[in-house]
Amino acid sequence: MIKIVILGAGNIAQHLYEVFQTIKTFDVVQVYNRSEKALSYFKTTATTTNLKNLAEADIYIIAVADDAITSIANKLPFTNRLVVHTSGSVSMHELHKKNRRGVFYPLQTFTKGAHVDFSKIPICLETGEKSDFKILETIATAIGSTSYKISSEQRRALHVSAVFVNNFSNHLYRVAHEICETNNVPFEILNPLIQETANKINTVTPYMAQTGPAKRGDEKTINDHLAKLDKDIHKEIYTLLTQSIAKTYGR
Amino acid sequence: MIKIVILGAGNIAQHLYEVFQTIKTFDVVQVYNRSEKALSYFKTTATTTNLKNLAEADIYIIAVADDAITSIANKLPFTNRLVVHTSGSVSMHELHKKNRRGVFYPLQTFTKGAHVDFSKIPICLETGEKSDFKILETIATAIGSTSYKISSEQRRALHVSAVFVNNFSNHLYRVAHEICETNNVPFEILNPLIQETANKINTVTPYMAQTGPAKRGDEKTINDHLAKLDKDIHKEIYTLLTQSIAKTYGR
Repeated sequence: MIKIVILGAGNIAQHLYEVFQTIKTFDVVQVYNRSEKALSYFKTTATTTNLKNLAEADIYIIAVADDAITSIANKLPFTNRLVVHTSGSVSMHELHKKNRRGVFYPLQTFTKGAHVDFSKIPICLETGEKSDFKILETIATAIGSTSYKISSEQRRALHVSAVFVNNFSNHLYRVAHEICETNNVPFEILNPLIQETANKINTVTPYMAQTGPAKRGDEKTINDHLAKLDKDIHKEIYTLLTQSIAKTYGR
Repeated sequence: MIKIVILGAGNIAQHLYEVFQTIKTFDVVQVYNRSEKALSYFKTTATTTNLKNLAEADIYIIAVADDAITSIANKLPFTNRLVVHTSGSVSMHELHKKNRRGVFYPLQTFTKGAHVDFSKIPICLETGEKSDFKILETIATAIGSTSYKISSEQRRALHVSAVFVNNFSNHLYRVAHEICETNNVPFEILNPLIQETANKINTVTPYMAQTGPAKRGDEKTINDHLAKLDKDIHKEIYTLLTQSIAKTYGR
């Protein structure tokens, strides 16, 4: 039996809590949160708002906002226990070294309330001590995730990469949505293309999958497109990404 | 029985040919191409390299490169027949008016050789005459596609939108791939996130789906990310898209 304390009550805390409940060999013994209110979500588990009252456990998972991680880790009233955070952008070394440190970072976009399929979530693991790595690996495997050994430096690279493929791609969808609305075209027409663009990456590299006027060096189409765009910021994005693609393909 | 002549032998011509062969009420009577060589693909159908020898048909589908469409349409040796092109960026009016004109534009990214599921391809239809619209609709429905009535002006907007969601998103995947390679991280870790980002659009608008440091106004993370990027062009893309997201959410 692995005894777990979760610190935090937000999105990731809730999703981890839910999936841990389904594993017979896991026991979430307590959930901590600064404020009482958010703890009402965790009905069947002991809760506390006081770090001094933390229960004994095999692992303490800090799933709070990035800028609150260090302060919580500093205040933990014990030493030499396994303490991990779940953040993509915070170094493992920002956890206080009085405890055994680690990172358990699920690389996915979480939607509040939506069911999460952990078999589709890669988990990036890091620990200070080798024996602790096995514990994190056991937890990741039990919830059905694929896990990777990723250093804090590598995790920083993944986190910025995730901004490109998730935040920025989504913003391009938003730009397309705006263009469609301006021209009275249903945005849903683009949906299959969006799905197929993402799917292609399962079988070919993005380098090989690239198509379009920027890659072909098709100046006429590029100019037609720029003329069609109303907003300056859309023109700027179009121009910069076109330049970057042209450069990638040696134009 | 709908008699069809396909003009062109490339990617789209081949995919249309394949799916038309599966429809009992369609008869592809001939395929035209400027050069003999590419016609070898169409083994069971009559072919020609001479526009003067075009067979009689109910519809002529010009599936060639954008800049060759007008010239072929001009040279057709008949009048008052239904002639359509398959391009996203060429106006219907670039087809010669001696014939009845139309557009049959499948909005999808086609991979040479890969099987195409037309039920996942929206087709944008436009015709000069109302009765011809029914013919195009019949063809789109028969191959399992959803069709939309889209004017040339709307189609231009869709075409530029498609560049954002397809070409540009794919390029962001490429940038992420580069960052991962530089930092010895397997790019495949990002794959589930890429899929989920695209999937989300099935249930929420891109505006609602947006997350990340740019939306939150999280300057610390933004600066950390910029510091982590090696290439200037990656920094430029990061900065511009971050600005655009911030603007979208009134920051």
